[in-house]
Amino acid sequence: MKTLLLIGMGSGDPQQITVQAIQALNRTSVFFVLDKGKTTDDLVRLRLEICERYIREPGYRVVQVRDPKRDSTTLSYTQGVEDWHEQRAELFARLIEDELGEGECGAFLLWGEPALYDSTLRILDRVRANGCTAFDYEVIPGISSVQALVARHRVALNDIGQPIRITTGRRLVAEDLDNVVVMLDAHCAFQAFVHEDLDIYWGAYIGTADEILIAGKLADVCEQIRQTREQARLRKGWIMDTYLLRRSAKPH
Amino acid sequence: MKTLLLIGMGSGDPQQITVQAIQALNRTSVFFVLDKGKTTDDLVRLRLEICERYIREPGYRVVQVRDPKRDSTTLSYTQGVEDWHEQRAELFARLIEDELGEGECGAFLLWGEPALYDSTLRILDRVRANGCTAFDYEVIPGISSVQALVARHRVALNDIGQPIRITTGRRLVAEDLDNVVVMLDAHCAFQAFVHEDLDIYWGAYIGTADEILIAGKLADVCEQIRQTREQARLRKGWIMDTYLLRRSAKPH
Ligand SMILES: C[S@@+](CC[C@H](N)C(=O)[O-])C[C@H]1O[C@@H](n2cnc3c(N)ncnc32)[C@H](O)[C@@H]1O
Ligand SMILES: C[S@@+](CC[C@H](N)C(=O)[O-])C[C@H]1O[C@@H](n2cnc3c(N)ncnc32)[C@H](O)[C@@H]1O
Repeated sequence: MKTLLLIGMGSGDPQQITVQAIQALNRTSVFFVLDKGKTTDDLVRLRLEICERYIREPGYRVVQVRDPKRDSTTLSYTQGVEDWHEQRAELFARLIEDELGEGECGAFLLWGEPALYDSTLRILDRVRANGCTAFDYEVIPGISSVQALVARHRVALNDIGQPIRITTGRRLVAEDLDNVVVMLDAHCAFQAFVHEDLDIYWGAYIGTADEILIAGKLADVCEQIRQTREQARLRKGWIMDTYLLRRSAKPH
Repeated sequence: MKTLLLIGMGSGDPQQITVQAIQALNRTSVFFVLDKGKTTDDLVRLRLEICERYIREPGYRVVQVRDPKRDSTTLSYTQGVEDWHEQRAELFARLIEDELGEGECGAFLLWGEPALYDSTLRILDRVRANGCTAFDYEVIPGISSVQALVARHRVALNDIGQPIRITTGRRLVAEDLDNVVVMLDAHCAFQAFVHEDLDIYWGAYIGTADEILIAGKLADVCEQIRQTREQARLRKGWIMDTYLLRRSAKPH
């Protein structure tokens, strides 16, 4: 049997990795690194740094492959993602077949928490559905950017007994505003709600040396966040940011 | 200055602790352990076990205090929780004052992720609002039971680009059923939805030696989960369980 490990690596701070993840790193013979072109070189580098820092007997191989590009010309977003997943499933099946020996462990070091807005688990389901079943797999949780965000701002994710919503910039709607964490937002979706009485806790590159944190009344900091974000994105060539939006608490 | 560390310890598996949390343990002079009476002795024990396992030079003190009991006779749930938080805030202020020396670090080892359905952060805000400000504090994220649940079931938290909801048994409503994680559910709230076409991924004592996992169509496993849960609760005297409910995927 071959084994694939989906290892959550935390979302920027190499110290936010678990003991369980470190043990998984040390079981791994082959690391698969998907490389999306130069904008995310930094992210590939952090993966290699984690391997170097935590693996005690370095005998592992690194197999770096070009990630299939998502076709943004297809009609629907979901269809585009579907096609891309199918291409990735074929790639993964080939990697398992060609690059992993019998009895060996291969691993993906996944950003943050493997179950949160990450397609790897779904692609593996597809690999198996397509008939490539000669492997087992395990998921090792990791600290998500959501957790890193609220830890740095020292705020709770929920009000007493209240529900939590996590969503994407694309899907943020007024009904969410009581309390919502937004990820994957390239367009500062919070701007649409600047006239509501909201608090925002925003962070970019959280856990890394470039970390930026801004918090306050949305009306007061909206423009500051937008500008800071744009400048940082231009400077580094890429940005990852997340925020918690919440109706301002009424005074007691 | 005195420092308080709110350290996420993971939700059952002592290996699901981060390197950052271990460093925080090693900075700590005093561990505050809130003890809620015998039902949760096991949870107190796991905290002490973590200290023993990961602290390299054990010179720390453990201050175990009786947690104020929540008054369940007050009119509203929220008012009951408010009063209880106020009592805890007074207790915390006293602990910081009496038990922590100048320049020392005190710590709470918090179950799972400190920002998720945990009142410690909120109580510290209250301690400061009440005028006790001679301390600084840091939050160290930990693997939540939500992450442990989905890792063991090897499922993603979200469908492609879709929002995620996390809620409590008390607040679970039909609108959530597309995709929802339920915590703090003493009454098997899922039973109300047994006639919907749902998948459930359930787990109890996740990450511990007593771990139980059940997954399937809700209609098929609803009764099995209810019975398993009840038996386990009687046997151990307490239970912690969590589940993901999701509309069954339509075949492609
Ligand atoms: C494809 S998702 C992956 C999320 C990841 N699985 C996790 O658990 O954080 C990428 C999004 O995560 C958020 N993100 C990841 N790392 C971040 C960081 N260090 N700082 C801020 N946001 C981050 C951003 O919203 C980004 O658009
Ligand atoms: C007061 S909340 C604390 C949650 C914690 N902060 C976390 O991140 O998991 C307690 C609830 O968490 C869930 N829980 C915690 N540990 C668990 C475990 N090991 N297995 C299953 N559920 C767990 C249960 O729903 C329980 O009612």
